[in-house]
Amino acid sequence: MTDPGATLAAIRERKPLVHQITNFVVMNETANATLALGALPVMAHAREEVEEMAGLASALVLNIGTLAPHWVDAMLLAGTAASQRGIPVVLDPVGAGATRYRTETARRILKDVDVTVLRGNPGEVATLVGIEAEVRGVESIAAGGEPAELARAAARALGVVASVTGPVDQVSDGETTLAVANGHELLAAVTGTGCISSALTGCFLAAKPGEPLAAAAEALAAFGVAGEDAAREARGPGSFHVGLYDALAALDPATLSERARIS
Amino acid sequence: MTDPGATLAAIRERKPLVHQITNFVVMNETANATLALGALPVMAHAREEVEEMAGLASALVLNIGTLAPHWVDAMLLAGTAASQRGIPVVLDPVGAGATRYRTETARRILKDVDVTVLRGNPGEVATLVGIEAEVRGVESIAAGGEPAELARAAARALGVVASVTGPVDQVSDGETTLAVANGHELLAAVTGTGCISSALTGCFLAAKPGEPLAAAAEALAAFGVAGEDAAREARGPGSFHVGLYDALAALDPATLSERARIS
Amino acid sequence: MTDPGATLAAIRERKPLVHQITNFVVMNETANATLALGALPVMAHAREEVEEMAGLASALVLNIGTLAPHWVDAMLLAGTAASQRGIPVVLDPVGAGATRYRTETARRILKDVDVTVLRGNPGEVATLVGIEAEVRGVESIAAGGEPAELARAAARALGVVASVTGPVDQVSDGETTLAVANGHELLAAVTGTGCISSALTGCFLAAKPGEPLAAAAEALAAFGVAGEDAAREARGPGSFHVGLYDALAALDPATLSERARIS
Repeated sequence: MTDPGATLAAIRERKPLVHQITNFVVMNETANATLALGALPVMAHAREEVEEMAGLASALVLNIGTLAPHWVDAMLLAGTAASQRGIPVVLDPVGAGATRYRTETARRILKDVDVTVLRGNPGEVATLVGIEAEVRGVESIAAGGEPAELARAAARALGVVASVTGPVDQVSDGETTLAVANGHELLAAVTGTGCISSALTGCFLAAKPGEPLAAAAEALAAFGVAGEDAAREARGPGSFHVGLYDALAALDPATLSERARIS
Repeated sequence: MTDPGATLAAIRERKPLVHQITNFVVMNETANATLALGALPVMAHAREEVEEMAGLASALVLNIGTLAPHWVDAMLLAGTAASQRGIPVVLDPVGAGATRYRTETARRILKDVDVTVLRGNPGEVATLVGIEAEVRGVESIAAGGEPAELARAAARALGVVASVTGPVDQVSDGETTLAVANGHELLAAVTGTGCISSALTGCFLAAKPGEPLAAAAEALAAFGVAGEDAAREARGPGSFHVGLYDALAALDPATLSERARIS
Repeated sequence: MTDPGATLAAIRERKPLVHQITNFVVMNETANATLALGALPVMAHAREEVEEMAGLASALVLNIGTLAPHWVDAMLLAGTAASQRGIPVVLDPVGAGATRYRTETARRILKDVDVTVLRGNPGEVATLVGIEAEVRGVESIAAGGEPAELARAAARALGVVASVTGPVDQVSDGETTLAVANGHELLAAVTGTGCISSALTGCFLAAKPGEPLAAAAEALAAFGVAGEDAAREARGPGSFHVGLYDALAALDPATLSERARIS
């Protein structure tokens, strides 16, 4: 069912366009990660063009990390356009639970847009399911319960594939839950690695249509393997960050599937 | 006619201020490239200050990579102020041809502002000349015809120096067309390298007033040589990206002119 | 009085949340520097959430590097909320003196918000004190008088701790003036290092409440020491920039206090 190497090969062959409406902090990072993986990023947020741009894309990624009213409008317009055309949508609810505005915006997008994959940390996802959680700024401090159960509950309650990242990631469609055990602790030392995992989820969704559960897990495995590779020569978060792009570009489809620890 | 080493030496001596109204994805990158080359970047986009800031600058760079209405207003205000004072203006029409909004905005800037150099990829430039082109997001997939001819046609039709970048860049004022054969394929693996080439074009225009054709070609040669140097020790797009700034700062005026492949 | 190693240890233990409303050019950089030091950054600028977010934070950093009207509104709202709750506020008046809009906005924030530390270059700070200065874009070219005297005068005139950075930094509360002699000239070759020093000032204020003079000086010493470490293996501004994050994360509380050159 999951074969990240094959999907990676498909991404590099088809170079899907991945439209991202994301936050100011990570735009360069998610664009470069998308490009390093082998897909084509495009950043566009004006209400005047987001529907047209989303319609050209093979996946849409919505990220509320530095939201504001006209950006929210653009996300809803783009998301609705994508939903109508069957284009997969990833939502990254950055900071849901930290402020009411973030929680309400994430809920509104989940209500109005046909979100395919919700990719967040435990605190953000728990907040959206209505489970007590502690979110400090954009960091998840504590979320009630076990991550696999949280992913399953979120998938059922919200009608999405829930992709809950942490030391071991949990991806669930409400029936099947996949654990992804790749990665490295340095990923938590660089800002925007969660956002990058959402962008890469968009790339995998674009290349594996109709299989969002597998695609979401494959994306996290691929990013985790790149993190493992980047950590090998890193001397800290700065050189690790740089090495991530080198590692994403160097990911080998032939060995990726066996290195992926999806169960 | 072209002597990139001499212009680089002038940039480092005079440290011209280059005002950039550019996209969110590459602001840090174009500012750091400007600084590494030896000029002073300033990013300012508020309608409340762009005319005053443009008036202080030696060149203005307009880039529509993540445009929105009040940014377009600011570009028109700054561009008009620069035109009135004879300050050279570079336009980077990122994504023209991908959405109507981008195409129309680029056309409006070309109409209202005295654009000195139009720096784009073949698809973007072809779109603005009215030639059939394929643009996916912000990537040029195909543009009818040969790049040198496209640059010449754009220069004539739009009354600018057209700087069309690709494996071999073509820079034309409608009479003379210069080919620049420096660079490295890794430049296409990092987001924003096109935007950086536009920013550096602004730096060269500032230091070589009245010679936009030569200055635009020199800028591309200098950036291409830096790309060649950065590629030497790169292990992928991440380390290449970092090496670009080191290479720009290390560019040697004494050898740059002989390394430049302008014909 | 100053003990940067002890404050660094406290930052790493408590992981204070530092709310930053800053410019587009450096958001990723200041977030990563905050994280590398050991604190938690959060970027939020919507009027709909800044008061709530500021109320959750242990320090607030306001930076006008790419200002616009609704960002200024957000800074005033967040700053007022922070002032009311006794949360320390850092103001970085990027480009004050370059345009009227920047000068007036910085003055308005100083008037309406209880700014704890004003962190700027000599030209910006002199402008706000009303002393003749030359600011080109966001670079300070010349400011009348000696930096230590400028810091003291600014502290007295504006009722803040004035933190004036340069080859030797000067930090003053109007009574006591501390000189910080750490750092490296490569810090001036990377855009946003001033902004990073303001963000780190926020981190130190959060961990040393009630002692803004000492905390501000400690922050500059810590950043300067990291700059010295990063310069050791740098081959230019690109690799230096990357090394800064590695060096911030590797700062050793046990040796930091003796390496700090605060007098």
